[in-house]
This record gives sequence, C-alpha cells and structure tokens, in this order.
Amino acid sequence: MADIIIKNAYILTMDPEVGDIENGFVLVENGIIKDVGTSTNSNAEKVIDAKGSVLMPGLINTHCHAGMTLFRGYADDMHLKEWLEDNIWPAESKLTDMDIYAGTKLACLEMIRSGTTSFADMYMHMNKVAQAVEESGIRASLSYGMIDFGDREKADMELKEGSCFVKEWNGRANGRITTMYGPHAPNTCSRDFLIRVKQQADKDNVRIHIHVLETEAELNYMKEKYGMCSIHFLKDIDFWGTAILAAHCVWLSDGDINILARHGVNISHNPVSNMKLASGICPVSKLVKSGANVCLGTDGCASNNNLDMFEEMKTAALLQKVSTMDPSILPARKILEMATVNGARALGIRSGMIKKGYNADVILIEMKKAHLTPVYDVASHLVYAASGKDVKTTIVDGIILMEDGNVISMNEHEVLNTVIKVSEELISRLGN
Amino acid sequence: MADIIIKNAYILTMDPEVGDIENGFVLVENGIIKDVGTSTNSNAEKVIDAKGSVLMPGLINTHCHAGMTLFRGYADDMHLKEWLEDNIWPAESKLTDMDIYAGTKLACLEMIRSGTTSFADMYMHMNKVAQAVEESGIRASLSYGMIDFGDREKADMELKEGSCFVKEWNGRANGRITTMYGPHAPNTCSRDFLIRVKQQADKDNVRIHIHVLETEAELNYMKEKYGMCSIHFLKDIDFWGTAILAAHCVWLSDGDINILARHGVNISHNPVSNMKLASGICPVSKLVKSGANVCLGTDGCASNNNLDMFEEMKTAALLQKVSTMDPSILPARKILEMATVNGARALGIRSGMIKKGYNADVILIEMKKAHLTPVYDVASHLVYAASGKDVKTTIVDGIILMEDGNVISMNEHEVLNTVIKVSEELISRLGN
Repeated sequence: MADIIIKNAYILTMDPEVGDIENGFVLVENGIIKDVGTSTNSNAEKVIDAKGSVLMPGLINTHCHAGMTLFRGYADDMHLKEWLEDNIWPAESKLTDMDIYAGTKLACLEMIRSGTTSFADMYMHMNKVAQAVEESGIRASLSYGMIDFGDREKADMELKEGSCFVKEWNGRANGRITTMYGPHAPNTCSRDFLIRVKQQADKDNVRIHIHVLETEAELNYMKEKYGMCSIHFLKDIDFWGTAILAAHCVWLSDGDINILARHGVNISHNPVSNMKLASGICPVSKLVKSGANVCLGTDGCASNNNLDMFEEMKTAALLQKVSTMDPSILPARKILEMATVNGARALGIRSGMIKKGYNADVILIEMKKAHLTPVYDVASHLVYAASGKDVKTTIVDGIILMEDGNVISMNEHEVLNTVIKVSEELISRLGN
Repeated sequence: MADIIIKNAYILTMDPEVGDIENGFVLVENGIIKDVGTSTNSNAEKVIDAKGSVLMPGLINTHCHAGMTLFRGYADDMHLKEWLEDNIWPAESKLTDMDIYAGTKLACLEMIRSGTTSFADMYMHMNKVAQAVEESGIRASLSYGMIDFGDREKADMELKEGSCFVKEWNGRANGRITTMYGPHAPNTCSRDFLIRVKQQADKDNVRIHIHVLETEAELNYMKEKYGMCSIHFLKDIDFWGTAILAAHCVWLSDGDINILARHGVNISHNPVSNMKLASGICPVSKLVKSGANVCLGTDGCASNNNLDMFEEMKTAALLQKVSTMDPSILPARKILEMATVNGARALGIRSGMIKKGYNADVILIEMKKAHLTPVYDVASHLVYAASGKDVKTTIVDGIILMEDGNVISMNEHEVLNTVIKVSEELISRLGN
C-alpha cells in the first residue's frame, strides 16, 4: 500500500503536458509521487481529503540566508553601506553555532508554514544549518559562503571549509540535502579564487551559488578593477554554465542578458530585497524573453523581512509590470513556473511538478476564505490574492511536515522561544 | 463601568506626543477611547488580555470599490483598455443591487479580518453598499461614483443620485457612515459638472472623492482637451482644498505637487493597483516632503487582488525605495502614519490614533509567530513582516467585530456562499 493519497483536490500540476486537474488525486510512496490523475482505486495508509483546497508543488526559494531570521527587523530603512557595514556584518561576526542553528530552525519553520518545500542557502556555520534542515524535514541546497578579498591564505581556508562541507553533506538526509559551492560575489572574491572554486565544483560535480550584480557599486567596482562588468568577467574565466545559480543580477545590459541565456545560467530574482535595499530592478521580462531560467528567492530576513514566497511571487509580477509599463508582462502562470519548475531546475532537483516519479514535495492551499472568494482563476488567486498563511498542509519527500496548520516535524513553541533567547543574548553581546 | 478594557498590550498609539507604550491598557466606553496609559484601577464589562499582542489604531483604506470583490481574479494581466472596456465595464453593467450588497459584505468581512476599520468607497448601487457597511459594523466614507461624459442630462441625473445618497446616509449608523460626493475623474466628468459638484459638496458640507491622474492617458487627454493637466485644470475651477480626497495622483510634475500640498489635498496612494495595472509610480516621497497628506488605499479587488492594508504598507515602502534608489525613504513609522493618522485626516474622522476622545477603532496583532520572531522593532514587523492575517481582534466604534480570529458581526459562511452563488449567476448572465 502507498504511504499517502490526497483526494478531491484542484491540482495545479505545473506539468505543461497535463495542466490543471479539477478534481484529482495524488498518490505518494517512498517520498515519490507514484501516480496523479482524476480517478483511482489505489489506497494508502494516510488519506487526505483535499476538497476545497488547491494542491500544487511546494514553492522553491532559490536564494536565502536562513540564519538571518535572527536579524529580522534588526536594521531597516538604511543605506546599504550603513546597513551592511555598521549593522549586519558586526552582528554576524558575533554569531555562534548555536545562533545559526536556532535561526535556521526558525527559517525552516517559517518556510514550512508558508509552503516552501526547498530552499537554496548560502551562509556560515553550515554544519549547523544542515543539521537544522535535516531535523526540520525541509529540502535544501546548501553552500558555505566564501570570501577571500584577494588574500591567498584566506582563499585556501575558505575553499577548504566549503569543500569539507560539500563532501560531508551532499546527498544526506535521504537526498533532501544537496550542496553547492558558495563564492560570495565577483567583487568580494578574487579572480584566481573564483577559477579555483569553479574547478573544484566541476571536480566534485556540484553546483555554484553566487551573488552577481546586486548593486551598482559592484558594477562600478568591476569596471574599475577589471575593465568589464561581472557578467563578462565571469564569462572570461569560463565560469558560466547550467550549474551556476546567480542571485540578483540587477545591473544587466542587453549583452549581459544574452550571455546568461546562452550559457543556461539560473538567475534567482529577489524583488522584495532589491526594492527594500534600493538595489535596483532586475530586467526579468527581458531575461525570460531571452530564454534564461529565472527563479525566485526571498534573500535573508534582514532585507525582506519574511520568507513568504507567495509575497515574492506577487511582488515579482507587480514590479515587472510597473517597471516595463506593461500590465500583461509575467502573467500569473509564468510567475508560478518561476517559483516551482524553474526553481527546481536551478537547484537540480526532481521537484517543482506534480508528476509521476517526482519528489513528493506538495502543498495544499485552503481556498474558502474571504480574500480568496470568489474563484474564477486559481492561478490568479495564488499569485495576486493569497499569502503563505493560506497554506494548510506541507509535504516534503513524502513526509507530512504540517497538516491543517499544525507543524508536525518541529516543536514550534521551542523553536520560537530558543530564537527569542538567542537573539537577546546576541544583542547583549553586541552591547546595544 | 466602561464597556471594554484591553490590558497588557504593546500599544502603538500613533500619537506623536505619546509614542509607544510597552505594557499598557486602553479603556473603551460608548464607542470612544476613554483612557490610555500604563496602569489603571478602571474596570470594564469586557476584559481583553492582550499579552503578546500589539494594539494599534485600525488601518484606514482610503480608496476602494468594495463591490469589486466580485471581480477578484476575473481579469488579470491585461492592458488597461482591454481590462476596463472589454471586461470590467461590461461586467459592471450587469451588476444588481443584490450583487453589490453581497460583494460589499465580502469586502467588509475581508477588511475586518485584515485589520481595516475604516474605508472610503466610490461605486454604484450605494444604498446597498451603505446597508452592508451598516450591518457589518465597519466604518466607511461612501460616495456614489458619478460620470457625465459631458452629457448635461446625465450630469443632472448623476448629481441627483449622488446628492440623494449623501443626504440619506451621512452620519447614519451612529456616525459610522459618512458620505462624500464621488465625481469619477477629470477625464470622465465635464468641467461644468465638476464645478456643480464642488458647489453642491460645499453646500452640503461633505467631502469629495475623485480619481486624479491615475494614467498617462488621462494626462494626455487633459492636455489635449484643456491645454493643461488635471491638477492645473482643477485648480482653475477652485476645486482643490482640504475636503478633497484625490486617489492615485501618479502623473504629477513638481509644480503639481506644490499645488496639491499648498491646498492641503489628501492623496490616496494605491501602489499595488498602480503596479498591477502598470499605471506608473506616484512620487510619494516628494509629496510627503512637500507636506501633502498622503494616505493609502487598496483600490478595488479587480486590480489588487485583495484588500490587505498591511500588504499595501509594505508595497508602498518598497516601491518608493526602489524608484528613488534610496532605502531610507519612507521608513516604517512614516508608512504606519500614512495608514492610520493620515487616513483619518483624509476622511475627516476622529480615528487613526489610540488617544483619549478618539473613536475606539482598534486592532490587536498577535506577535508570537515564526515570521514575527524575534522582535527588535514592532513598527518594522508591522510594515515589513506582518500581513492582515496576523490581526486577531478588530474593534470598530467600541464594538468587537472579530475576536481571536472569529468574526462576530457577520455570518462568514453565509457571506462567502452568497458571493459564490452571486458570482456564478453573474458569469452566466455575462454569457461566458
């Protein structure tokens, strides 16, 4: 007998060959979707009646710094330099293993609650991040954020730490945890270091997660230092490819867009963070038109300040419409693709669709609510009217992590109390 | 004895002379806030322990078409002309009294659920809108939307209908309902008609709610027809003043901003709608700097697609930051002012502050949740991390409309089912 059968759901399969199924079922066995359709004689140990709910693939957050939940609301409405150099970096330098573990647990809890089933993370104390991911039941692609600032000794140490992490954790937790290399950005990592990271990643057959052209300051720095922008600089060292996850990509020329598309680079668009920090507007519609794989991310909680991928979807749509002055740009279904199918492709995981043989990463959204009534078009509601708080059930790898709003895989009370304690101690260590 | 006492709350009074009260109480009697402070011997028939919650003035939605909840998700991702002329207007022409009543009930329910305690509405079948408002317990400033398109006969009829509504409903429901005149916009109402409306409003001592420069098309039309933009055109007929609520104001020159500020015009900024319809970006930071009274609105559900004022607050902040490339613009507290104090000023109501003698329009927000943990700055969380779904209790005019997530003033199930039925009938009448 199968493990779970979900019946009577409106299924948004996100499978282009199938489309939506109005009254369907999904059968789950050993963490995998075993069958999807309209009628079945199959049975399972656990039966979920999803009448009145939408079933869809869990959302995929492709750029996060999960531990930064600890800095939610810690420093807002500031210029980037003041925010980062006077507030975030000093605070980060005081973070302990325990802090990162607690902050990541909170992030996993928030993501499970809001329908995110996978995320890509780049941060520090990554063993603790991985432990939190393993325990919470969520799926993640993790990387240790490496910075060398042109210091050869630091470069060696960073690469060693990144490499140890990759080797220790790749494929762990029944494959829920995968790893990447995480060179921070072209302006914080030296050319030589980036070349070494790329070689090591190729050798280890893992992907690379990197910030690229988040700010105009990076663009100016690169032009000054190398006489070219980050996109051309990385092309010059044969960095680009389908194994690269490039976050932000705000300051792109049309030529840059062609390079990214031609090399099949995965671009994580983070509209809320880009707006809040006034980084600029990523030319998403041009990227999509060029054939690039654009997915969505929340960035860390210090610049968002939540991890709600539904909010990210709506903001992505709205920002492109107003910035191109074209309301037909990036319609709801295209945005849903970015948050599911494209995200899975960027992380190299078999998720993001409700399809036989795919990971059973599934969410249920309750529709009979004031702000979701009436229903003409489910996709429209998911992007423009819903939020993560409408998610009632979250399943990852075939395991129910939240059911009817009750988180099962974690002790929610304990997670919140630990973060409150840890953040108070952090503030007292920081002396403010 | 007083009616209600709320104890142990973190109070965001929004009163500049008081600021926040960390552990305070609010005493309510006869619909009015009787006392606010840190300790009291007072008692009340109903005691609410608000430990762990933030207490703040209910949010004020200053531009809405409540009945348009019926068109939530009905037509998205379209150019304005196609959206309005091929979809919304044909559907609106089929609306009955019953439809508007059902749709407005749904809007009131959604607003009560998401912490909005007052709204300004402009629509049609206004007797039914007023009835829905009266029954739901929310506060509203209502106007019949008048369009003459230069037709004198139509102008007479519209003004008569607007005037009848003003006289019948102003001050009803214990003063919860106030009324305004609602000339639709400078490009849909003739010069002569606008002059007559202004005179009538002055005579009746009520305010005026009007759309102004929502689109570039309006700007071009006005320049072509009158040789000047809407702001100068309305200045020319002595329209502007503190009794005017002008929605959108997207296409403003610096000179226009000065005119609006000098005349004390109230400007309802609707960022989500402006982004979704690709109308453009209102220069809010310049308006605020000029001293204009800027408040916030959701617009109708057909262009949003919800009525969540928390989402509107976050979007307003983010959009100004990215469009001015200044992350310090419109900090969280300034945004909260727009949604409370400034909104109350725009509607001419004694709400928007937790202050002795003010209307008891109060909401409680539950803070012990994953996405609101930890707390360094309450204002930051309300604007950047929370949503309307975090509101647990809503009080309007001293009456508890929702307590701990349970709506008391309406039969939620019935409201939803009626809208589902009404929208199905509407679709079949429309023949699609």
